[in-house]
Amino acid sequence: MEINRDHISSWLKNLQDHICSSLEIADGSAKFEEENWVREEGGGGRTRIIRNGKVIEKGGVLFSAVEGEAPDFLFKEKEHSTATGDKKAKPLFFATGVSIVIHPQSPMVPIIHMNIRYFEMNDGTRWLGGGIDLTPHYIVAEDAKFFHLELKKVCDKHNASYYPKFKKWADDYFYINHRKETRGIGGIFFDRLNTGNDMSFEQNLAFWKDVGSAFASIYTELIRRNKDKTFTEQNKQWQLLRRGRYVEFNLVYDKGTKFGLETNGRVESILMSLPKTAGWEYDYKVTSGSEEEKTLKLLKKDLNWI
Amino acid sequence: MEINRDHISSWLKNLQDHICSSLEIADGSAKFEEENWVREEGGGGRTRIIRNGKVIEKGGVLFSAVEGEAPDFLFKEKEHSTATGDKKAKPLFFATGVSIVIHPQSPMVPIIHMNIRYFEMNDGTRWLGGGIDLTPHYIVAEDAKFFHLELKKVCDKHNASYYPKFKKWADDYFYINHRKETRGIGGIFFDRLNTGNDMSFEQNLAFWKDVGSAFASIYTELIRRNKDKTFTEQNKQWQLLRRGRYVEFNLVYDKGTKFGLETNGRVESILMSLPKTAGWEYDYKVTSGSEEEKTLKLLKKDLNWI
Repeated sequence: MEINRDHISSWLKNLQDHICSSLEIADGSAKFEEENWVREEGGGGRTRIIRNGKVIEKGGVLFSAVEGEAPDFLFKEKEHSTATGDKKAKPLFFATGVSIVIHPQSPMVPIIHMNIRYFEMNDGTRWLGGGIDLTPHYIVAEDAKFFHLELKKVCDKHNASYYPKFKKWADDYFYINHRKETRGIGGIFFDRLNTGNDMSFEQNLAFWKDVGSAFASIYTELIRRNKDKTFTEQNKQWQLLRRGRYVEFNLVYDKGTKFGLETNGRVESILMSLPKTAGWEYDYKVTSGSEEEKTLKLLKKDLNWI
Repeated sequence: MEINRDHISSWLKNLQDHICSSLEIADGSAKFEEENWVREEGGGGRTRIIRNGKVIEKGGVLFSAVEGEAPDFLFKEKEHSTATGDKKAKPLFFATGVSIVIHPQSPMVPIIHMNIRYFEMNDGTRWLGGGIDLTPHYIVAEDAKFFHLELKKVCDKHNASYYPKFKKWADDYFYINHRKETRGIGGIFFDRLNTGNDMSFEQNLAFWKDVGSAFASIYTELIRRNKDKTFTEQNKQWQLLRRGRYVEFNLVYDKGTKFGLETNGRVESILMSLPKTAGWEYDYKVTSGSEEEKTLKLLKKDLNWI
């Protein structure tokens, strides 16, 4: 089969189907609602939202495939003739991806995020990007190890340099600079992957697909391990504060969110990443020796979770 | 008395005292906690936080007076010799102000924000800035009229052009562009006021002081009018969503917040503006004919509230 935009967007739609079914089974109660939307300038998306489930409080699994004139910030990067004053037609772009954020009901189940995306322009430029990262309200060492080991396996199958490189990229990307805290325990993050690292585009595409395919089994396993744990009112309060940090990251730093809001993207799809509730306490201090303190101490870059 | 930085910062500290006393009386239960902090590069602040009161759920009245080398963004504006390659010493700056955000318990009582600030550099540049804006969860026409009339009176006492000009500035500033909604019913906003509008710096300072002095009586009156109104669970849910929008404005657009986070400001003081809890629902639709719909329809620029 030829590898083109149609192949890739079909594959992503199938992935969305597969992930939604897996999450519905893991939740055991809620079903996804679907909304199809059309982008005025070209393309559209299939937004699927799940809420008020037994396990999942609020989550989205979003597919989109949009096209049109490349936005200025990309155009400028590709425009080599500005110095001579020539005006070229803006290149056309096509972008497709699946984005996921799941906020669970229980503070014992971690928040998860995944995004994989493909981008191309009509001058032949194309690349792949993606990432998965985990934000436990309470870090459980064995779960963190499991999560990173699974991602490492996916990477190692394709290229031994990928896990260390993309794990560091995630540590740097999912960082709340003003708090000097990572958002969670990281994961992997990569962007603008085409050829390179001794890999053809097709080989990188195979890696990229494996990242997307790994999501459902990793997260449903983390749900299975944690969903029946008991928790207290204090645990729920802490969950609210950690969700507050998640909101801070997404609104202040996340490039996809910023880009979407600045370019008149579909607000409800962009901000589906925000939790149903979040909280802020002035100068909240964790109690010495508490589980909250243990987690906070682990929200650092460059930790080896494996 | 000579008008200098010491005069202005002393006046602001007295204002902080006066406002805190008024708010404690209006609350009837909670007291402000005070925290003094020192800025490594020069100056510091007196942060006062009130929480879990009868009327006020979370609020801050912050005084600060900081000084040092002017940050780059100001330095560049003042630097006229870059083209010749000369290196001048960075100018020194001094900035002092009072900032307030109050989130009430009841959805029937509006959120309020005020900031007044004074800035100077050692080359003689100095200016005044400020604003007050109101964010009712439910807009009450008489309260909106009262609020804007009181601000108009303060403005008109000094300059007839100020209310229309600064009211429009507030509409434009307190705007959530991605939602195409104003944050609330606006108020007044102004920046970089020194001389001009046929006013001396001293005359503008007198206006600026009157803005600060008007805050306590305006807000305590709005508390008095609304604090005993009954409300439902639905009203509380709507309050959470409106607070979500408040968080979106502050983290995505507010210049003070962005500047503070980017320049390594004191995070807990900067983010005291965030509510104790906030919420997001995917694609929330107000019910036709509801109070929520009436409020949403009024979150527009350029309405005449008087």
